[in-house]
Amino acid sequence: MSKKLVPVGVTNHHIHLCQEHIDILFGKGYQLTHFKDLSQPGQYATNEKVKVIGPKGSVNLRVLGPVREYTQVEISVSDQYITGLDAPVRYSGKLNDSAGCILKGPHGEIEIQSGLIVTVRHIHFHTTDAQKWDIKDNDWLKVKVDGDRGLIFDNVFARVKDSYALEFHVDLDEANAAKIKTGDMVEIID
Amino acid sequence: MSKKLVPVGVTNHHIHLCQEHIDILFGKGYQLTHFKDLSQPGQYATNEKVKVIGPKGSVNLRVLGPVREYTQVEISVSDQYITGLDAPVRYSGKLNDSAGCILKGPHGEIEIQSGLIVTVRHIHFHTTDAQKWDIKDNDWLKVKVDGDRGLIFDNVFARVKDSYALEFHVDLDEANAAKIKTGDMVEIID
Repeated sequence: MSKKLVPVGVTNHHIHLCQEHIDILFGKGYQLTHFKDLSQPGQYATNEKVKVIGPKGSVNLRVLGPVREYTQVEISVSDQYITGLDAPVRYSGKLNDSAGCILKGPHGEIEIQSGLIVTVRHIHFHTTDAQKWDIKDNDWLKVKVDGDRGLIFDNVFARVKDSYALEFHVDLDEANAAKIKTGDMVEIID
Repeated sequence: MSKKLVPVGVTNHHIHLCQEHIDILFGKGYQLTHFKDLSQPGQYATNEKVKVIGPKGSVNLRVLGPVREYTQVEISVSDQYITGLDAPVRYSGKLNDSAGCILKGPHGEIEIQSGLIVTVRHIHFHTTDAQKWDIKDNDWLKVKVDGDRGLIFDNVFARVKDSYALEFHVDLDEANAAKIKTGDMVEIID
């Protein structure tokens, strides 16, 4: 059987906002402005940034569009040390037990009680890719990286949707630990 | 057989200097001043810092003591993106094919032609630990980390010396990718 190769997509820390929070942070009725498209269909980076504030410090996160139903703040473990915020490792959208923080925009600030996570490393599969490799939505996988900083990522979460493009999403800490960058190919192993 | 457990020691980027370069960067005959002892016997952090300059930017690195025969600059993959410097993954002291950079101190600056590396993840073994587990100097090992960000580090270099304290050395990128910190226990696996 051929190798299950997946392109890497390195994801920087970022934030998704609901309109209610956009109104508070940027002003009533404010509309996010498009900066550039992302590899996942329909997703884009905006020109807007929000300050995420914790007990020890803050980090500036780019807002991703489109507007979501719930605000979600995706920080890195490095950010946890900078801000003093402690966020659980969760998959996007699974915000039970997620943490809170203060968000500050040019117009105002708000304290959110949940929505702060460190995103679990995951692979987006288009349905046809998942079927070909017999991978199911919510499976946990292992991904092997070769090279000087070779390693095997355990606990890689599988998400399958018709709207997804095949991609292994890691954050900057993970990418640099393994010395991989967007577009590199890695292998799903058993 | 009992598990081969090793405590983690997270190593921040840093620099070792020879006296000739200390003279240039800090002034003729300058002596490094002790800041705090490190876990490896005889090694210590100093109060001195040096700017490491590349084509895109710079990072400030703390000088470690004691003075060495050769200058060695140990940066992270994150630092490579910040500075635009491209350093090979090497073990400390193995500086063949290592890269160069500009170093700037309070007294002067110098361009070095070699000595710039990204340190390969490695374990220091006291001789008795290595014998107990049948591990030889220069072996390549695998280290397993459990938890939310669990992974298996491949290409872990073994160094054995009577003067070493047992410790698994990773940089901040690697520590944050695996969500481990100094003092956590990890396991050598076959």
